[in-house]
Amino acid sequence: MSALFERLQPYLDKAYAYRAALVMLNWDNSTAAPKEAIEFTSKAIGILSGESYNTLINEDVKELLTELSKDEEQELLTAYEKAIVKNMNKEYKNLEAIPPQEFQEFQMILAKAYPVWEEAKNTNNYSAYAPVLEEIIAYIKKFAGYKQKENQKLYDVILDEYEEGFTMEILDDFFGKLREALVPLVQEIRKKPDHISIDCLRKTYDIETQKKLSRFMAEYIGFDFNRGVMAESEHPFTTNLHNHDVRITNHYQSGKLEDAIFSVVHEGGHALYEMDIDDAITMSPIGGGTSMGMHESQSRFYENNLARSREFWVPIFDKVKEFFPKELEGVSHEEFYRAINYSAPGLIRTQADELTYSFHVMIRYEIEKMIFDGDVDVQELPKIWNAKYEEYLGVTPDSDTTGILQDMHWSGGSFGYFPSYALGSAIAAQLYHYMEGVMPIKQYLEEGNLAPIREFLKEHIHKYGGSKNTQELLQETTGEKFNPEYYIKYLTEKFTELYEL
Amino acid sequence: MSALFERLQPYLDKAYAYRAALVMLNWDNSTAAPKEAIEFTSKAIGILSGESYNTLINEDVKELLTELSKDEEQELLTAYEKAIVKNMNKEYKNLEAIPPQEFQEFQMILAKAYPVWEEAKNTNNYSAYAPVLEEIIAYIKKFAGYKQKENQKLYDVILDEYEEGFTMEILDDFFGKLREALVPLVQEIRKKPDHISIDCLRKTYDIETQKKLSRFMAEYIGFDFNRGVMAESEHPFTTNLHNHDVRITNHYQSGKLEDAIFSVVHEGGHALYEMDIDDAITMSPIGGGTSMGMHESQSRFYENNLARSREFWVPIFDKVKEFFPKELEGVSHEEFYRAINYSAPGLIRTQADELTYSFHVMIRYEIEKMIFDGDVDVQELPKIWNAKYEEYLGVTPDSDTTGILQDMHWSGGSFGYFPSYALGSAIAAQLYHYMEGVMPIKQYLEEGNLAPIREFLKEHIHKYGGSKNTQELLQETTGEKFNPEYYIKYLTEKFTELYEL
Repeated sequence: MSALFERLQPYLDKAYAYRAALVMLNWDNSTAAPKEAIEFTSKAIGILSGESYNTLINEDVKELLTELSKDEEQELLTAYEKAIVKNMNKEYKNLEAIPPQEFQEFQMILAKAYPVWEEAKNTNNYSAYAPVLEEIIAYIKKFAGYKQKENQKLYDVILDEYEEGFTMEILDDFFGKLREALVPLVQEIRKKPDHISIDCLRKTYDIETQKKLSRFMAEYIGFDFNRGVMAESEHPFTTNLHNHDVRITNHYQSGKLEDAIFSVVHEGGHALYEMDIDDAITMSPIGGGTSMGMHESQSRFYENNLARSREFWVPIFDKVKEFFPKELEGVSHEEFYRAINYSAPGLIRTQADELTYSFHVMIRYEIEKMIFDGDVDVQELPKIWNAKYEEYLGVTPDSDTTGILQDMHWSGGSFGYFPSYALGSAIAAQLYHYMEGVMPIKQYLEEGNLAPIREFLKEHIHKYGGSKNTQELLQETTGEKFNPEYYIKYLTEKFTELYEL
Repeated sequence: MSALFERLQPYLDKAYAYRAALVMLNWDNSTAAPKEAIEFTSKAIGILSGESYNTLINEDVKELLTELSKDEEQELLTAYEKAIVKNMNKEYKNLEAIPPQEFQEFQMILAKAYPVWEEAKNTNNYSAYAPVLEEIIAYIKKFAGYKQKENQKLYDVILDEYEEGFTMEILDDFFGKLREALVPLVQEIRKKPDHISIDCLRKTYDIETQKKLSRFMAEYIGFDFNRGVMAESEHPFTTNLHNHDVRITNHYQSGKLEDAIFSVVHEGGHALYEMDIDDAITMSPIGGGTSMGMHESQSRFYENNLARSREFWVPIFDKVKEFFPKELEGVSHEEFYRAINYSAPGLIRTQADELTYSFHVMIRYEIEKMIFDGDVDVQELPKIWNAKYEEYLGVTPDSDTTGILQDMHWSGGSFGYFPSYALGSAIAAQLYHYMEGVMPIKQYLEEGNLAPIREFLKEHIHKYGGSKNTQELLQETTGEKFNPEYYIKYLTEKFTELYEL
């Protein structure tokens, strides 16, 4: 046992407490707080962020980390403790690069930005949002500049924070391969716009009943309401205080049944990851999922690989019909399966089908590249956005509400985050491919027996939290590193069959 | 402008941020958190409480307060700043008396105690709760012991924290006068048990509609939902982050319409107090109501003096009937007025009528006296409780759920709090009596014009927050100090008329 690590523990505990407070204040801000609150509450958020920073960035911690990183001390540490030290060294380097005052200012801007974005989106008023967005970008650029190594591109600094080692070089290659394989497929499908009907999803679906259905879906995939909460917000998200308090939100549209269903399964996938993390590390710096990409792989695994399969609905489609007996009367399992996999280029990322989804990510990726390594006026972004949608997907937003204002991410300072969505899908496909080889996964789905699937993910991915990185987890689980070929193969086979190409 | 006070400000800001975090975590714990969360979350609560303590209790603050208390420095301070220094000196003395480690342990016990109490109440299992209660009492005794002055009784130390200067001597006298005046009145009323019918409140009232009615009632008395939130919890309470985020909870019983109505008006009264506090001090140590007694005077003013009057219902009774057209069909305004003022000794404090209410408080007061200045076994408290109910009110609890387990207060460490309920009623009556002399208050009620009433309270009581104490506010507003005679007169006249005695 390391006496040095014991001296580090109080700092970890304090940092955890601040994180819990900030998670709670932010959760509340998005789900419950009254309209006029944030102007005042943001002061508390700013102060707590500053304190959180001061807890980990100080001479004591720096010295402890230096000592704990020495070979002779490392030998005394458990695997988890080693991972915590490694993680903190990285985090420390990141945080230390940013002056505390600027960090705190940034947190306060973020706290105010969410309602500004929400209002701008609701009123299709990009120019009301642009100044805040510009402020956020300026801070992100400044912060990335502090961390930038020689010859390193600014956007690579930002990308590295979300997925270690996944540079523009790798992503350009990844998106290039996807483009090559998927563009022809999408074009073929566009020739058959009436091949699949989505009429059965476009009735008027009562919102309160959708909420009950969402709760049923969450429980069905294993979300434990003794350890979790579901609420409503503008844009669905997942957050957590620890593995016994994991929270998801959902949103509802009466005319789009699939929206609430796949949002809750998506957020549920994130939530299962957090719920399955080892008790021993849940309140530590490695207590969350290991990366955004791996997190998205879990949400997409549940949303797409599982819930958009034929087999998933076999045991529960009748139950779903009980929620909406009139609206789903006479709809067959096959009709429903086809409807939830309808593919057509659209404007909204979160409503995109599995196939065209990557294009939405690609557009954001390219715009972020322009923002951070190009020279672009924030006021001009809507034009650029719209032009790219026309170029790649053949559709043009009729307003910024359905265009550049649709995502909350940038208002939360999450630049470099979007690529992880595409990585997540590719990782999910790689995992699914491997799992098919070691367990009768389709049979489990048909039997409504989701436990062995989750158990596999828990034992190989979830429980480790942030103690192993994406490449390590993939290598140990599937025997190889990240490989996007499975994703391309999966999509090609699935949509070729669906659209009889 | 005081340079010294400017040096104090960062400590105040930090203390505020911790308070906000703790308020939010506790609010969430009572209204939304999943069942298994608290076991883990209490760690964060404990740490934040410790930090909150360390922020105000340290050599820097001590020195600043000493300097700021000197005459020459006081001259440089604004009235608010002076009040902050005074308040902090008191708080400092209180906090400094308690070792940080013990303070933190206590906060963690409290975080765990709430669900234990809730479970014990739900399952009528006092013995499962007794050990936690015993722990809490031990800490309160220990803490009070640290602050105890020579010749001071332990319970007086505890009482003083809630209402400065209201000692057992004063309370014994106050309750004595009440007992003398009210016992004969209650006895007379008990001879006419069928004089008032409450049948109209005992139909089956749909819970969701009650929630809508509660929202209407909150808005009617002036609760601003742009600056406030209403949720559901086991026991209604009010809390706030600042004057732009004030939160109330309510609870609902289908067979007792008056329960939700008067709970929401009661909590609404607390909430208006908090919403009306000056922006300049809302996030400072004097940003809350000045005392528990004064706070209760505002909730009771709205609940009883206003909402249990005939005049209050004149403009809105028809509207209330629209919520429950079938259930309230044919019920007259007078019938409703009489029903909501039905008086009979009962078991549950929060459901007690205005007249018998003080007996419930008296019983708790006497038991707390026994706990802190007597010698009593916590396991024996249910027996003592039940005996006192029999002695004063002629009723005996059929279970601890309806007996000693009914209140959440002790599980939150709130000993010495109960007397403020009775003081609150007396202060409310004193304020109402004065206001009647300076404005046509009954006419305002009949016109549905509640604004001037609130405005008076805001200008004379609310806006000052904790910058003036109860006696000062009463003296400045009504021209005299606390005087319980108005309360006795008010109850006697009201119930003599209602019961035709």
